[in-house]
Amino acid sequence: MEAFALKRALDNVRAGSPLVHNITNYVTVNDCANALLAIGASPIMSDEPADVEDITSICGGLTLNIGTLNERSIEGMFAAGERASELGHPIVLDPVGAGASALRTRVAGDLLDKLAVTEDNLAAGAAFARDFAAKTGAVVAITGAIDIVADADRAYAVRNGSPLMGRITGAGCMLSCLCTAYAVANPGALLESQVAAVAGMGLAGQQAQTRMGGLDGNGSFRTYLLDALYHLDGNALEAGAKVEELA
Amino acid sequence: MEAFALKRALDNVRAGSPLVHNITNYVTVNDCANALLAIGASPIMSDEPADVEDITSICGGLTLNIGTLNERSIEGMFAAGERASELGHPIVLDPVGAGASALRTRVAGDLLDKLAVTEDNLAAGAAFARDFAAKTGAVVAITGAIDIVADADRAYAVRNGSPLMGRITGAGCMLSCLCTAYAVANPGALLESQVAAVAGMGLAGQQAQTRMGGLDGNGSFRTYLLDALYHLDGNALEAGAKVEELA
Amino acid sequence: MEAFALKRALDNVRAGSPLVHNITNYVTVNDCANALLAIGASPIMSDEPADVEDITSICGGLTLNIGTLNERSIEGMFAAGERASELGHPIVLDPVGAGASALRTRVAGDLLDKLAVTEDNLAAGAAFARDFAAKTGAVVAITGAIDIVADADRAYAVRNGSPLMGRITGAGCMLSCLCTAYAVANPGALLESQVAAVAGMGLAGQQAQTRMGGLDGNGSFRTYLLDALYHLDGNALEAGAKVEELA
Repeated sequence: MEAFALKRALDNVRAGSPLVHNITNYVTVNDCANALLAIGASPIMSDEPADVEDITSICGGLTLNIGTLNERSIEGMFAAGERASELGHPIVLDPVGAGASALRTRVAGDLLDKLAVTEDNLAAGAAFARDFAAKTGAVVAITGAIDIVADADRAYAVRNGSPLMGRITGAGCMLSCLCTAYAVANPGALLESQVAAVAGMGLAGQQAQTRMGGLDGNGSFRTYLLDALYHLDGNALEAGAKVEELA
Repeated sequence: MEAFALKRALDNVRAGSPLVHNITNYVTVNDCANALLAIGASPIMSDEPADVEDITSICGGLTLNIGTLNERSIEGMFAAGERASELGHPIVLDPVGAGASALRTRVAGDLLDKLAVTEDNLAAGAAFARDFAAKTGAVVAITGAIDIVADADRAYAVRNGSPLMGRITGAGCMLSCLCTAYAVANPGALLESQVAAVAGMGLAGQQAQTRMGGLDGNGSFRTYLLDALYHLDGNALEAGAKVEELA
Repeated sequence: MEAFALKRALDNVRAGSPLVHNITNYVTVNDCANALLAIGASPIMSDEPADVEDITSICGGLTLNIGTLNERSIEGMFAAGERASELGHPIVLDPVGAGASALRTRVAGDLLDKLAVTEDNLAAGAAFARDFAAKTGAVVAITGAIDIVADADRAYAVRNGSPLMGRITGAGCMLSCLCTAYAVANPGALLESQVAAVAGMGLAGQQAQTRMGGLDGNGSFRTYLLDALYHLDGNALEAGAKVEELA
């Protein structure tokens, strides 16, 4: 992927200020809102079935995060998702650990077991992601020590990030909301936009890590991560992204 | 408005430690609780219809924030609101962006469109606020680049604040909770207390902005804003408030 | 209590990374998750009745916090609690201020009135805690200026902590989640593990207080508290814990 596409993807977010509808868990929702604001997007949260269709209609894209499901929010997710589909809005699904049922919990767990990506299983991970993308018609991002982003034809490895991102709650939830913003702002370049979102989040994590002083822990890291997203621009992303196309 | 009234309004909050019942959205609820604690008030959150009447009865005032409505919390808002009214408690309504229905969403949007306040439409904004206050019997606060606070007879412009307040989620939600605390602690001076709340929040935003270092973004600004509220006292408010009575 | 038990209790948490299921209020849930991550444990939040039994089954322990109850989460608490009991998992109940009904609100309030612990009523507090532990078969922790932790036979006073912990929301909620993690990681030493959890939280509060600069307020204190939990290790806990067995 040419670096220019990554720079442009973020520049488009900052220039377009996409309005993003998020139905997400109540654990990390505040960080999700601040992360979207940090990159220049605008968050709206709403999960009430009677409210979501109107809200998603005025937005450009939809994030569905199943981290803390309940019957009402599930109904809201389907209602919002159907309306967003009708309107052609990009939808990002984040299948956080636990599901609404034994089945989904098990499937999510099995996928996670299979898909923790290392140098050893990178090729297998890329093949899985491309297959899954082909079956679903979605762009698929699998995050871990190395991230994979793929559509049916192409797969990219992203080697940005910090181990401290696993020591706060919400790094993944924030990323899925940012993915929606990047998708909205880059309608003709879905795969590239998602690579940019993933690389940008990882780069922000690296920058946050460099600010850590001797007494700083995950409380400070969370703040620094938002700060780094706030200052991230296209040129820094272009310079710092570690993206490789996989065979 | 004499500066003394502003100083006294905040001093009364710190001295009286008002207990405030908040039915508010789950995005910014943590910041709302910490903002109330910062100015010396005590927060209680409860939205379950079976619980809210007892809770609001032991509190001095009620905040209703419709940022993430659901059927249960709507029922809780009406139950709490009716009980708070019976008890003569001040109620602050924050009609955050989206409503529970197409109608409320549309009306809130229209109001926002009409009321974004600048020097150009300040007189019109003040007239609108006074009219709306006369119709509803409420004190009305319209926040933006310039804030307007009015009852049926008088309107004030408040020119405190920082553009960074729009780069975090929750500045408005925190302010509406603080408005409740100021109202509870200043029973004989509702309008003045609300001017003090609005000016104090804006001043805290200005002070938070002065702490921003080169790497700081909206993560740090959120922390600094709470810190500034924590240290704000009546004398600082008196010295820093930029309040003007409008004709 | 020998200091070694406290060191070991925390070391066991860091070594064992216990997975903790939390049904907790939406005000402080993010801080609860980050506090668990800070001490090396893993948080899962789920309150949907259809989801909680599966979730609690894969965890080692359960936190029930009634800070913002609703009908659904109450049902979830009972379902999760019954399953956790069947599985022999430790369960920590945090009866935050308000309850689901007038009765529980009143009882919680009466208990709080009776149990705010000072040097003057320390002996009475210890006797109450031991009696309550004997009646319920639970380990009981009563937190305040001085904390008491007791089972039916023994009671300990813990004199760690900072008054700033009362100026943020969530110190108590975080502690109850940490109590669950300590219980899971120390199956043969329930009482000792809870003393360690309480002393460790208090010590983190003291350390956070020492970092406070002139402009820092409760926003920064919240960050510093998580940071201190992140860096707390068994040796520091052993050196700093102020624990005394009560007659």
